[in-house]
Amino acid sequence: MRAALEAARTSRDEGGIPIGSVLVHRGVILGTGHNQRVQLGSTVLHGEMDALENAGRQAAEIYRESTLYTTLSPCAMCTGAILLYGIPRVVIGENRTFLGEEALLRERGVEVEVLQDPDCIALMEAFIAEKPALWHEDIGE
Amino acid sequence: MRAALEAARTSRDEGGIPIGSVLVHRGVILGTGHNQRVQLGSTVLHGEMDALENAGRQAAEIYRESTLYTTLSPCAMCTGAILLYGIPRVVIGENRTFLGEEALLRERGVEVEVLQDPDCIALMEAFIAEKPALWHEDIGE
Repeated sequence: MRAALEAARTSRDEGGIPIGSVLVHRGVILGTGHNQRVQLGSTVLHGEMDALENAGRQAAEIYRESTLYTTLSPCAMCTGAILLYGIPRVVIGENRTFLGEEALLRERGVEVEVLQDPDCIALMEAFIAEKPALWHEDIGE
Repeated sequence: MRAALEAARTSRDEGGIPIGSVLVHRGVILGTGHNQRVQLGSTVLHGEMDALENAGRQAAEIYRESTLYTTLSPCAMCTGAILLYGIPRVVIGENRTFLGEEALLRERGVEVEVLQDPDCIALMEAFIAEKPALWHEDIGE
């Protein structure tokens, strides 16, 4: 989660949306990513998606032994990607500022752990207060 | 759907996975895309995602008046993207070769229409017969 938080802070320092993620297989980081809406004008590269993209093409067995760490509760799109690849465990920095599709993940058998990490919460609270329109765009509102 | 099928055939001709999609707002195509697993080594750019990416950053109101056309039933990831952006209508070429998360879309109020188009079915059947490992990789199997 430290690596995910670092990616989120990098994104913030670039003027982007401060959400970061890492895909980890047996203790090894396969891919690190952060939201790319501002940096690349991307509508699909949320932090989790960027981590999956940067991990590159992996065999199904690899995903099925991996854990996705993300600083914020995953939205419907990122939840769907987790389900597509059968990632069995998701560790979430916080869901106070945004509650994604955790119920759907659990319903489909994914292990979900929410840390309510004060640093993750503070990062998002500061961002939402500073750039509410950008934040709403990112979650389709 | 003709434009989506054309994108799918372009992808096939490039050696890629033959699934195409277009996002349409009030009769105007905002973005066209096809699966980019082979062409870009992408794990997140399914046809639908590529169309959304190519449509660029749009206001929430635009998505909410748009229709997504896709040659194949949308997987969990693409379904999640449709839900994130609140796209109210999805027109699907076929779901014979792969049945995605249509039930979830309908449950969340999305209008889903399945054409069972013979050209879409033939395209996927030929691809799956020719490159089964690539196809399974694309759907996380």
